[in-house]
Amino acid sequence: MYNLAMKVSELGEFRLIDLLADAAARSKPAEASSWQQVLVGIGDDAAAWRSDAPVQLATTDTLVQGVHFTLDTIAWEDLGWKALAVNLSDIAAMGAVPRYALLSLALPGDSEVEDMAALYRGMAKLANQFGVALVGGDIATAPLVVITVALWGNGLGGDDLMLTRSAAVPGDRIAVTGHLGSSAAGLKMLRQKLRFEPETTAFLKEAHLRPHPRVAEGQMLARHGVKAAIDISDGLIADLAHVCRASKVAARIRVDRVPVHPRLRASFKDDPLGLALSGGEDYELLFTARRGLIDRVKKAADCPISIIGEIVRGEPGTVTLTDEAGKAFDWQGRGWEHFVSTGD
Amino acid sequence: MYNLAMKVSELGEFRLIDLLADAAARSKPAEASSWQQVLVGIGDDAAAWRSDAPVQLATTDTLVQGVHFTLDTIAWEDLGWKALAVNLSDIAAMGAVPRYALLSLALPGDSEVEDMAALYRGMAKLANQFGVALVGGDIATAPLVVITVALWGNGLGGDDLMLTRSAAVPGDRIAVTGHLGSSAAGLKMLRQKLRFEPETTAFLKEAHLRPHPRVAEGQMLARHGVKAAIDISDGLIADLAHVCRASKVAARIRVDRVPVHPRLRASFKDDPLGLALSGGEDYELLFTARRGLIDRVKKAADCPISIIGEIVRGEPGTVTLTDEAGKAFDWQGRGWEHFVSTGD
Repeated sequence: MYNLAMKVSELGEFRLIDLLADAAARSKPAEASSWQQVLVGIGDDAAAWRSDAPVQLATTDTLVQGVHFTLDTIAWEDLGWKALAVNLSDIAAMGAVPRYALLSLALPGDSEVEDMAALYRGMAKLANQFGVALVGGDIATAPLVVITVALWGNGLGGDDLMLTRSAAVPGDRIAVTGHLGSSAAGLKMLRQKLRFEPETTAFLKEAHLRPHPRVAEGQMLARHGVKAAIDISDGLIADLAHVCRASKVAARIRVDRVPVHPRLRASFKDDPLGLALSGGEDYELLFTARRGLIDRVKKAADCPISIIGEIVRGEPGTVTLTDEAGKAFDWQGRGWEHFVSTGD
Repeated sequence: MYNLAMKVSELGEFRLIDLLADAAARSKPAEASSWQQVLVGIGDDAAAWRSDAPVQLATTDTLVQGVHFTLDTIAWEDLGWKALAVNLSDIAAMGAVPRYALLSLALPGDSEVEDMAALYRGMAKLANQFGVALVGGDIATAPLVVITVALWGNGLGGDDLMLTRSAAVPGDRIAVTGHLGSSAAGLKMLRQKLRFEPETTAFLKEAHLRPHPRVAEGQMLARHGVKAAIDISDGLIADLAHVCRASKVAARIRVDRVPVHPRLRASFKDDPLGLALSGGEDYELLFTARRGLIDRVKKAADCPISIIGEIVRGEPGTVTLTDEAGKAFDWQGRGWEHFVSTGD
C-alpha cells in the first residue's frame, strides 16, 4: 500500500500515521482482550477503551538517541522492542497487567520510512506477546530520535495487590529473578566489537537488545503476597538503593550470591560481578519478602530466583556489600558509592 | 529545601524527581477527586489510581525545542502550561474529563534547576485548574529539550457520549468555539518583535503562550448530543480536512464567517484571515452537527460559537472555501492546498 523506500519528510506525518495504523490493524491478535475493548484507536484526538478494572496504573519512559542508544549498536526493530520493554518492565514491577500503549516518536525528516516500519514492527511483536494494544501516539520532527512510550495497565485486584518500592521492611530477604549483568555485557560486546562463540554472542545480544520483561513473574509475586519490588534498570545496587530509600531501610548484599549467567562468567572473566552489580538494563525484578514466602514463590516460578541479601535497619538508602565470609566486599573504587548516594 | 540556583547535572536525576514530587505535593488541591484516588504517585515504577469510569481515554503530545518552541519566545512556566494544554485540548475534543498526567522530560544536563521548577509550576497551575493529577513521569538527558505529556481521562458515560473525528455527515453545519488566528498572530509578534498597544500585546501573547483548552465546552457538546469534533491545532483548514477524511465527506467554508477577534483584525490588517484559516495552535474546538442542535449548544455555551460552513458529499478530505457571494475564495496561492492534500 505504501512505498517504504522513501524519507519520512516525503511521506508526511499524516501518511506515516496511516501506515503505522495499518500495521497495527494487520498485526493485532484478534483474541486479545485489550484490543476487543478499544473504542477509538489510532487517528483521532485521543484513544478510548472500555474498562472495568478498579485500579489503573501508568508509566512512561523515554529513549534518546546518543544517550540511551546509538544506531551503530541497535537495529530499528530491536529499538521498537526495547522502547516498549522498558515500560512493560515498570508495569511488571508493580505486579500489574499491561494493557494499552501510546508511542511518541520525534525523528529527523530524513529518517527512512522502512526504518520506522521496522521500529513499529518490533514494538508490535512484543506488544502482541503481552496482549498490549498500541492505540495511538504522536509523531514530531526533531534533529534526533526520541522515543517515548506511555503504557498503562490494570491492577490485579484491590489496592493491596500491588508491588511498590516503599514496602520493604527489616528482616525481609532480598531476591532477584533471572541473572544479572548480561545486558551490560552485551552492550560492551557491541560497542567494543568483542568476539565470542556464536551461542554466547547471540545470548549477550539478546540480553541487551531484546530484554524480556518479567510481566508474568510480577503478577505471580503480587498474587503470592509479595509487597516490595522494583525492576532492575539502573543496576542492582542503584535500584536496591531506590527501594531502601523509599522504604526508609538499609540493605546488605552477599556478592557471591548475585546470580551471574555461566555464559557471562565465561566470556567476561575479569569482571562479571561488576557488570552484575551496576551494569543495569537487566529488566529483572528485585523483590523483598520473608524467607518462607520467597521459598513458596521459588516453587511457583518458571525462572531462577536467587536470595542475595537482606533488608536491615540503618541509614535509609544505604546498601552494604559483603563477601561469603561476611567481610566488607572490596569494591576497588569501581564507583558504586555513586549509585548508593544518589538521591540521599 | 533545595537550592534552585544550580544545574540539573549537579542536582542529579533522582533529586530533581524529588524536587518535582515535592512541588506536586505542595501545589495539589486537596479537594480534587483525581488526587484523592491516587494510590501511588511520583517516585515508584508506575503511578496507580482507583477508577470506576467505564470508558477511559488517553492522548500524548510532544514539544521539541527548535521545532515547536524556542526559548527566545517562550518562558519556562509558559512552556509547562502549554505542554499540558495541547494534551488537555485533545481530551476536550473527545468530550471527556481529563484526570491524570505523566511528564517525560528530556533535557541537557546544564539546564537550570529553577527553570525546570518553573516549567513544572506552569504545568501544575493548569493541571489544578482542571483537577488533573500529575502522578509521575521520566527525566532523561538529551542535547535539547523534548517535553512529552501523556494524559488520560474518563468518558462522560457509555460509548456513545464521545466526540470523534469520524462522525461528521453531509448536511451538518460546521461550527467553531472562540476566535481563530490569535495564537499564530502572537507567535508572529514574538518572532518579529512587533509592537502593539499593551492590551493587544497581552492578548496576543496569552493566545499563543497560554492557550485555554475548551475542556468544559467539549463535555457540554457531548452532553448535548454532538458527535463530531476536533481541536484546532494544525490550523482550521488542516483540522477540518482531518475530520472530512475520517468521516469520508467534504466541507465548504464561508470565509467571511470565520471568527477573527477584533484585536487581531486591528493589529494584523493585511492578513487576519490567513492566520485564522491556517495559523494553527488555536486550541479551539471545531464540531459539526445539525443546525438545530448547534442553536441549542449556542444557548448553553459560555463562549462564542460561530457556524462557518457545512459538511457536503464529495471527495473525502476536501475543503472548499467560498466568499459571502458563494464564489470560490481566491486564496492567492498562500498554500492551503498543502494542508488539504495531506493524508489523501
